[in-house]
Amino acid sequence: VRPWSPSATVGVVGAGQLARMTQQAAIDLGVELRMLGRGPTDAAAAIGNVSFGDPRDLDELRRLAGGCDVVTFDHELIPHGHLVELESEGHLLRPSAHAKLAAQDKLHARTAMSAAGFPVPRFEPVASIEEVERFAGHAGWPLVLKRRTGGYDGRGVLVASDRDEAEAAGVADGGWIAEELVPILCELSQIVVRGADGEIVAYPLVRTFQEDGICVETVAPADVPGDVAERSRAMAEGIAATIGAVGIVAVELFLTAGGEVLINELALRPHNTGHFTIEACVTSQFENHLRAVLGWPLGETRLLAPAVAMRNLIGTGEANPAENAAAALREPGAHLHLYGKEPAGGRKLGHVTALADSPDEALRTCRRAIQNLQPKEVQWTS
Amino acid sequence: VRPWSPSATVGVVGAGQLARMTQQAAIDLGVELRMLGRGPTDAAAAIGNVSFGDPRDLDELRRLAGGCDVVTFDHELIPHGHLVELESEGHLLRPSAHAKLAAQDKLHARTAMSAAGFPVPRFEPVASIEEVERFAGHAGWPLVLKRRTGGYDGRGVLVASDRDEAEAAGVADGGWIAEELVPILCELSQIVVRGADGEIVAYPLVRTFQEDGICVETVAPADVPGDVAERSRAMAEGIAATIGAVGIVAVELFLTAGGEVLINELALRPHNTGHFTIEACVTSQFENHLRAVLGWPLGETRLLAPAVAMRNLIGTGEANPAENAAAALREPGAHLHLYGKEPAGGRKLGHVTALADSPDEALRTCRRAIQNLQPKEVQWTS
Repeated sequence: VRPWSPSATVGVVGAGQLARMTQQAAIDLGVELRMLGRGPTDAAAAIGNVSFGDPRDLDELRRLAGGCDVVTFDHELIPHGHLVELESEGHLLRPSAHAKLAAQDKLHARTAMSAAGFPVPRFEPVASIEEVERFAGHAGWPLVLKRRTGGYDGRGVLVASDRDEAEAAGVADGGWIAEELVPILCELSQIVVRGADGEIVAYPLVRTFQEDGICVETVAPADVPGDVAERSRAMAEGIAATIGAVGIVAVELFLTAGGEVLINELALRPHNTGHFTIEACVTSQFENHLRAVLGWPLGETRLLAPAVAMRNLIGTGEANPAENAAAALREPGAHLHLYGKEPAGGRKLGHVTALADSPDEALRTCRRAIQNLQPKEVQWTS
Repeated sequence: VRPWSPSATVGVVGAGQLARMTQQAAIDLGVELRMLGRGPTDAAAAIGNVSFGDPRDLDELRRLAGGCDVVTFDHELIPHGHLVELESEGHLLRPSAHAKLAAQDKLHARTAMSAAGFPVPRFEPVASIEEVERFAGHAGWPLVLKRRTGGYDGRGVLVASDRDEAEAAGVADGGWIAEELVPILCELSQIVVRGADGEIVAYPLVRTFQEDGICVETVAPADVPGDVAERSRAMAEGIAATIGAVGIVAVELFLTAGGEVLINELALRPHNTGHFTIEACVTSQFENHLRAVLGWPLGETRLLAPAVAMRNLIGTGEANPAENAAAALREPGAHLHLYGKEPAGGRKLGHVTALADSPDEALRTCRRAIQNLQPKEVQWTS
């Protein structure tokens, strides 16, 4: 007799906060989660079944996949060839290696989306400063330079105002794409979940707010004009079906001053802009991701309140906001999520979610709670 | 540098499903939970930081308490003297040894509640069959016999119709109380949380449904006449303050045919009749229990939907309902909680919660989901 009777066993490449919150959902479902982390400071390491190893090592991936019904991911930093190899050896990956590539390689994603007729900013692969200048010739300066792979939280993305700045970025290394700088009205995120049978459910459209390239706040439903929500949803559903994703597909979008909705980035895993779903939706993104990758029926995505906001807790130095947890909980309705990570400047250490009758009210609760966690940072005056 | 940075460390005596669900709440709060379990088949053993030992061994309790900011409980089966000893050694127990006694010893609880003016069924300690007969002389047959300590899920409680049945129960052993058999309209549960500073918050009144002495279903808010909800709440708040509890106080109540509300049992820990709070309330009973024992502010207890129901998944044999998890999730709005326990007849293996516009609708969803988990049990025809 096994010491316990899981309903299924899921492998997760990665053991960060996404895996940590997936573990909470896995507990409800009786699912055993086995995670491959980098080391004991990973957010999930203290609370889950995590073995440590390099996700760029095929043997580590094999060891993880060996005992699991299915393997999924909490990040993108896995060599694509390894994923193809695992599949050829008979392991079930969800999303598949092919689908996952859309989140791993920005050039592949842009090319595939564009070919399928989805609206993307003008882009071009660039391998030299001359190619950047040629692209600037029709897209204009400033323009955006992005590394094809490995970027996250604004890393690997920069705005270059001229040739000198582009040169300083090191585009001659290869592995970059250039993009037009789109005049943005606001940024949005549309999260959908695609089941193994092709069923798709969509979460409410989210408006996102960035600081220094990191998403700091989200509100849902997004306060956007006209049929933007409808178009965003149709686009995300189309993308999920086109790439054959299974699990969460998070589509970061630009709403342009001209009313266009353009694809920014894709993620094929639970996403920071979907954390609000834990308290605010019938089924959280984490549970729905598990349901999808296990081939189980998807859960309802409806909001339980008129509005919801989320604010990330971003480290400002060595101060440990966890010491102020009680102060954060003084705010009625503030849902605290601490990731148990070592504090460091710029690091995501947690988040706060609040449900309310209006987005502004929800945001105010989140901000007060975050300010109580970081009392030395006087961030808002009202 | 510690591998992670918890906001606090809480010891839990016990590692069953209550500890398992408390661990899910602890993850959100960045709280490190250290549990003392019986063995690897405990519900929390597969998902948390559990050491194994006998909770009747004072040294095991000392080892647990040693590294923790506070110690709390997921069951009652700890010698009261050990709790007193731990406190005298300087360990912080919440609830305190004194308060916990009200849930450990039914005679103590009845006597204390009665002395404080709270309505309880007529009762008397009995140590011989003659004493039972004397009690029956004024309370009548049938009557209820309860062991003072150690009972749960209907164990240690029986209805005796006559002297022979009372004798068969073995009351001559001592350690029993006799109670009048109250004419019950329905059973209720009122859960309140008392903070370390004396603040009290109350969850909505719950109606509970028993089979074979085990609670199988709950609905909230309870559909009770007149001021029953108000009286139940006032009573539970009064009890929590009277015994000086910190954390959850679950008061099981009888509503009599005459409209009286009488105290049945007390539990000073998260309670089966409060599982609905995970999805249906702003703050779950598990999070509020942690907040309380840590001396943190309590969270809101409001319902997020008009009605909510919960049905327990009770094992019927060796069949493992976890294998049918996907089928349960076919029911829209059914929230599944599997405890990862080895299947056995009569064992609580999980529960399902559903929010809806009416209690009946919520109950129907729960029942369909449970039936999908146990397809061989044809339990309902409509």
